[in-house]
Amino acid sequence: MLTLDRVYKARRVLEEVIRKTDMIAAPKLHPEANVYLKTENLQVTGSFKVRGSYFKISQLSDEDKAKGVIACSAGNHAQGVALAATRNGIKSIICLPDGAPISKVEATKKYGAEVCLVKGVYDDAYKKAIELRDANGYTFIHPFNDDDVIAGQGTIGLEILDQLPDVDVVVVPIGGGGLIAGVAYAIKQLKPNCKIYGVQAAGAPSMEKSIVDNEIITLPGVNTIADGIAVKTPGDLTYELVKQYVDGIVTVSDDEIALAILTLLEQQKLIAEGAGAVPIAAVMNGKIPDIDGKNVCCLVSGGNIDVTILSRVIERGLKMGGRTADIVIALSDKPGQLAGVSQIVAEQGANVVSVNYDSTDLDMNITDCYLKIGVETRNFEHIVAVKKALTDAGFKVCD
Amino acid sequence: MLTLDRVYKARRVLEEVIRKTDMIAAPKLHPEANVYLKTENLQVTGSFKVRGSYFKISQLSDEDKAKGVIACSAGNHAQGVALAATRNGIKSIICLPDGAPISKVEATKKYGAEVCLVKGVYDDAYKKAIELRDANGYTFIHPFNDDDVIAGQGTIGLEILDQLPDVDVVVVPIGGGGLIAGVAYAIKQLKPNCKIYGVQAAGAPSMEKSIVDNEIITLPGVNTIADGIAVKTPGDLTYELVKQYVDGIVTVSDDEIALAILTLLEQQKLIAEGAGAVPIAAVMNGKIPDIDGKNVCCLVSGGNIDVTILSRVIERGLKMGGRTADIVIALSDKPGQLAGVSQIVAEQGANVVSVNYDSTDLDMNITDCYLKIGVETRNFEHIVAVKKALTDAGFKVCD
Repeated sequence: MLTLDRVYKARRVLEEVIRKTDMIAAPKLHPEANVYLKTENLQVTGSFKVRGSYFKISQLSDEDKAKGVIACSAGNHAQGVALAATRNGIKSIICLPDGAPISKVEATKKYGAEVCLVKGVYDDAYKKAIELRDANGYTFIHPFNDDDVIAGQGTIGLEILDQLPDVDVVVVPIGGGGLIAGVAYAIKQLKPNCKIYGVQAAGAPSMEKSIVDNEIITLPGVNTIADGIAVKTPGDLTYELVKQYVDGIVTVSDDEIALAILTLLEQQKLIAEGAGAVPIAAVMNGKIPDIDGKNVCCLVSGGNIDVTILSRVIERGLKMGGRTADIVIALSDKPGQLAGVSQIVAEQGANVVSVNYDSTDLDMNITDCYLKIGVETRNFEHIVAVKKALTDAGFKVCD
Repeated sequence: MLTLDRVYKARRVLEEVIRKTDMIAAPKLHPEANVYLKTENLQVTGSFKVRGSYFKISQLSDEDKAKGVIACSAGNHAQGVALAATRNGIKSIICLPDGAPISKVEATKKYGAEVCLVKGVYDDAYKKAIELRDANGYTFIHPFNDDDVIAGQGTIGLEILDQLPDVDVVVVPIGGGGLIAGVAYAIKQLKPNCKIYGVQAAGAPSMEKSIVDNEIITLPGVNTIADGIAVKTPGDLTYELVKQYVDGIVTVSDDEIALAILTLLEQQKLIAEGAGAVPIAAVMNGKIPDIDGKNVCCLVSGGNIDVTILSRVIERGLKMGGRTADIVIALSDKPGQLAGVSQIVAEQGANVVSVNYDSTDLDMNITDCYLKIGVETRNFEHIVAVKKALTDAGFKVCD
């Protein structure tokens, strides 16, 4: 059973392996609230997950430790378990679907785990892990639905109260619910008037729907860039704790998440993964009630974002913020047209980054073409100004 | 004159405005050394510069404060001076060349400065700033060649010794030399056996060359992605301090800097600008002598990198690390060829991200073409494997 004693015990145990991550003021993230970031993306392994797994493993009997542990994950939990087992001097096996990104497989191996690649998807890997557990007596380390795991994550709640005693609101990502269960439990015991809000991806709102329906539901599918919180079914332990201690759950879209990632990167110089950025997405989009003038702590849970995904997020975020745009112009296909367009774009202070011609559209005269230019701009007003300058010069800008 | 008392005084004054940035262990950055990062990229304004300007401004007479301050910069110094002046309740004017990135201009305005855009380049803006100073009695805040500015930057040295008392080696970026002069001075007074190394961009080695030549030299030009340290002439105060207190200066290439930025981003979840990443580039490439088994602190001086530049750095870093590749294949231009190539690439576990055809090369048969595919790969061995599989299947891979 979860008790405050257990969370304190976890804190003592964890001292030997985790980093007390910094609490950083982020005054630009909201015009009225005093926003702070609890930077678990800077935790060892790049996410908070190591706290729960390490405490769980530390509490196993010597006999269970001798047999080893097993887990099923393609993400932060895998790395957390691997590091926790290695530091406890015990064996760990991590089952992964064989389509898992190579970077995650390599990271898991580097922390000392034996990786078992299973043909199929997550569910197949999970089945295989249970089989191996039953056959070999390994202890299965659940990613969230376990009191020791929850107690481990709860240590973040203690740190938040240490680092920001006047905190009014804490905003926490929800996947399976282990993180928020621990954090909300610890904080509500010690500072009951502090509000705790959970944030889910709009494409994976399993806990939100479960709370609304007043029973644990399973989503038919999940779809979000925040893969760390793409969970179909909440745990029963986490569900009960969320019901009791969390003041509300909101959801954010993938576009809101992408813009939050870009904002953290530009304004705070921090890399967050999708799951880690959802609290900021919620705060930036006014989804957390009653925060004006309040001290608001956003828990940035992790930073393990694939760099190719990050590259796409940056591009999408720039486009969403009016910082890049594609402009299509119908041209008569004669020399000097590109020069004319380029000149006008330059005069407007925009920067051409790509150029494409298309002269195969059947709706056009055979001598005409479409010119598509990618430009870097300041904001949406700037895009309008560039288009207007082109139109004023006689070019036909398409919408 | 610079004294240790002055650095301590700066520390006391700065308490009211700066953040004591975290010292973060980064064990993966070097196989043998214990690397730590002093994260001044997480400082307010995104760089250490605010320390020097704030202390300098705080020491002005009431009369000088009443007149206001002026500076010339398109970068971190501008934001540092603007914030420092605003917090001291005084007026600041920042002269910028009119080609300065809009994002920097906006950031400087947001911190409360009056921005004066000057037609031309940096030198023109500088001339204008001096004119305005002479006409209005403003105090000119030099970005590095000033004892109070140097004392302010020196407070980082005090913090390093607080946070990592067993530090053996400190690695610091050098532009004009203000940062390393302050840090080296403070540390050598308190822990003389601690080594201090400076790092410059290979495209802007003004301090390195000055030390080698034993006199201050001016470079004809500078060219590096690390714009924060692209300085043509060191200061005389900083030059003397570097000569006395710095154990060595090394240089790093733009490609080394790009890979260091990518490594910090992926492994440490931190955004560094080019100048901020040069210490890591130096350590990763074995340029700092005698660090095995030592506690090495890399000073990550700032994180203000333009996000479009960052995007390009990521792409370049991925290519340099074998994580993406372009493969060119000479095809006979008949149906089904792309399908065949795609199949083989997929079987090898690589991911196609772009496809281009070119059938206009005069060296080819008129029915043939070049297929250029962009692929995401694991590493250089993986690229070789993909190429070999294509060759084995009868495709003609070009080098």
